[in-house]
Amino acid sequence: MQRCALLAQCSDSPSGLTRLFCSDAMRDAHVRLAEWMTSAGLQTRLDAAGNLIGRRQSSIQPARTILVGSHVDTVVNAGWYDGALGVLMGLALAELLQEEQAELPTSLDVIAFSEEEGVRFQTPYIGSRAVAGDLQSDDPLLKRLDSAGVRMHDALAGFGCDPSELDAAAYDPPQVVAFIEPHIEQGPVLERYDAPVAVVTGVAGQTRACFRFIGVSGHAGTVPMNMRRDPLPAAASLVCQINELATAQTGMVATVGQLQVQPNVGNVIPSEVAVRLDLRHLDDQQREACFEAIHQHAVAVAGEHNVDCLLEWRQEQPATRCDGRCMAVLEQSMTAENLTPHLLASGAGHDAVVMAQKFATALLFVRCRGGVSHHPDESVEPADVQAGLRVLWRSINKLAENQRQPQQVVGVS
Amino acid sequence: MQRCALLAQCSDSPSGLTRLFCSDAMRDAHVRLAEWMTSAGLQTRLDAAGNLIGRRQSSIQPARTILVGSHVDTVVNAGWYDGALGVLMGLALAELLQEEQAELPTSLDVIAFSEEEGVRFQTPYIGSRAVAGDLQSDDPLLKRLDSAGVRMHDALAGFGCDPSELDAAAYDPPQVVAFIEPHIEQGPVLERYDAPVAVVTGVAGQTRACFRFIGVSGHAGTVPMNMRRDPLPAAASLVCQINELATAQTGMVATVGQLQVQPNVGNVIPSEVAVRLDLRHLDDQQREACFEAIHQHAVAVAGEHNVDCLLEWRQEQPATRCDGRCMAVLEQSMTAENLTPHLLASGAGHDAVVMAQKFATALLFVRCRGGVSHHPDESVEPADVQAGLRVLWRSINKLAENQRQPQQVVGVS
Repeated sequence: MQRCALLAQCSDSPSGLTRLFCSDAMRDAHVRLAEWMTSAGLQTRLDAAGNLIGRRQSSIQPARTILVGSHVDTVVNAGWYDGALGVLMGLALAELLQEEQAELPTSLDVIAFSEEEGVRFQTPYIGSRAVAGDLQSDDPLLKRLDSAGVRMHDALAGFGCDPSELDAAAYDPPQVVAFIEPHIEQGPVLERYDAPVAVVTGVAGQTRACFRFIGVSGHAGTVPMNMRRDPLPAAASLVCQINELATAQTGMVATVGQLQVQPNVGNVIPSEVAVRLDLRHLDDQQREACFEAIHQHAVAVAGEHNVDCLLEWRQEQPATRCDGRCMAVLEQSMTAENLTPHLLASGAGHDAVVMAQKFATALLFVRCRGGVSHHPDESVEPADVQAGLRVLWRSINKLAENQRQPQQVVGVS
Repeated sequence: MQRCALLAQCSDSPSGLTRLFCSDAMRDAHVRLAEWMTSAGLQTRLDAAGNLIGRRQSSIQPARTILVGSHVDTVVNAGWYDGALGVLMGLALAELLQEEQAELPTSLDVIAFSEEEGVRFQTPYIGSRAVAGDLQSDDPLLKRLDSAGVRMHDALAGFGCDPSELDAAAYDPPQVVAFIEPHIEQGPVLERYDAPVAVVTGVAGQTRACFRFIGVSGHAGTVPMNMRRDPLPAAASLVCQINELATAQTGMVATVGQLQVQPNVGNVIPSEVAVRLDLRHLDDQQREACFEAIHQHAVAVAGEHNVDCLLEWRQEQPATRCDGRCMAVLEQSMTAENLTPHLLASGAGHDAVVMAQKFATALLFVRCRGGVSHHPDESVEPADVQAGLRVLWRSINKLAENQRQPQQVVGVS
């Protein structure tokens, strides 16, 4: 917990915590992390994507590797725990292994991913993509500019990384036993369950879309109701319908976070309204069926209100399932610790989404206060972190011990 | 029509028409208007509120006065006809009287009100308020600043007006036979009726209000639907209900022109939504009952969605009825011209609202294309203006002739 506070001092902004990819604040954070990692007996290295990795080599060779960690970049004006807690729990685990002088048949790599939030270059998962072999040295993304006009390539080079070595940042999947990401829940469900931790079943798939209703503007006083082509009542009906459809289906979440009215003046009938939908569910088919129902309603209400409706854009992100055997290990560890093994789908994206494409991946949620995240009020209880650490300790040992029996190798499910 | 185009050249902006109260553009417009008025045999004067008045004195004395006119200020990026057409129709009427060498028992004052739109000092009707005796030389409004920090008092003084003489700008009600304001409809009803002109029955009363729904923000992916306190579905339900309630009542218009979502980010559940209502009807009681129904619905849906609802503010403007006898004269003139005397309530405010408090007032609507106004696309057909002028000519003559028979004096109804 103290280290969370110390890391939070590494900020690009004098007020509050903002730590962007390859920034001075990240360099400061790396200095502190590397020091702690070294004290914990880890060998540290900076890979070509700016990931800081601390390795505990197994004394038994050859050995496969268990990866534990999360990201150290943050959103603007962030909390202290999103990302950082997962890295520091990996570090604490390494310290425990050192204290116990454990002789595991696997190596352990504690990873501090360089970029997950996507703030600086408007693209997330840069760090985990490199580790998963999904960001090569010739990727056009390296030419992308940040808001100050700095290319990603040059940001990495300035941070001491050699982007031409990006291919070497990738782990060889057969050599990886599992990746486990401890992370705060960023939602209120564990608080409602009165539980410190949960096993994440997967990360929900997501449809993001924008419906634009186009009508005809006019004077609020002079156009009779029956002559209007007002897009706002149509858009409002869609918002109501989105809410009803999602509420009726277990596990579905649908949000209209952004609604833009043109010209948005009190005495002018709107000409256009854009409704931005964010729809998530762990089951891609259910999500797609729900989206179709929403789309049909949009077209229908547009007709009723004599306005046009365009599905302006639509983006899909399929769901990611966590590895069944890793999940089972986490569940068993919770039961052994007298904790109810709650299963939870994650509605938010994590490095685990990228890692799961190549490695057996699990995600361990730790309760956070009020579900508040991406905000300075982010808060976790030490006891909950301790519970998470005990689960992590048991799970890592179990995963490692399984390596002694080749027939139980945990692979990509 | 040519004069409308010439007046539109008098603009504070090089692109498009913007002519604000006491601006250089208004001075230019006054120079042109005064020239045309003088040619039409009118005696011109600038009153203390910046109104330009051209007087055709009756040869028969003592004589009461008929007032005809509208305003010459505009909104930003305005059309050519809103306001200006009414002034120029008054001028055309004076020219007809001159051509016909008419000997009316009343004087005629053609008034170009200085301020109706309320743009420069964020308050409308400055010109007509002075004429109606509702803006005295000690009014605190004179201290109000425009966006450049100029006091209204100084703006008037700089325009050549003496604000200490404001009291003298007021007409004595018993001396005024009637005020007739020709104005474009600014709505689409006459176009639908396929009629060039209409008699306005009154100006709708108005309720403006802001409902603020306050919920709890959160991550669009991590907060289950049944744990949300999302204010947007509640606000959307209110928008739908407002639309339905108004549509169900003849003559009611209700508009949500402005809807503001906080923080208005696609993947964040909104924390607050402000819904701005504009509700109008010619019958104040019907309007108030409709507002109560809307308010009740707002409270009810807030409860359903577990959010708070504040009626943040509410402003009321009672309806204004036009003078029955003046309306009858306009109707008779239309019938005599083989025009169907359509009756229409005005949903927009006009100088007539202020004038009706003191004088027998009528408002004559002229069709405009597509109901478009406050926009460069504002357009009227010459034939419709001609029809309006014929109605105006007959009406003025009728009102004047009535003055020969004292028992039929038209007074405030």
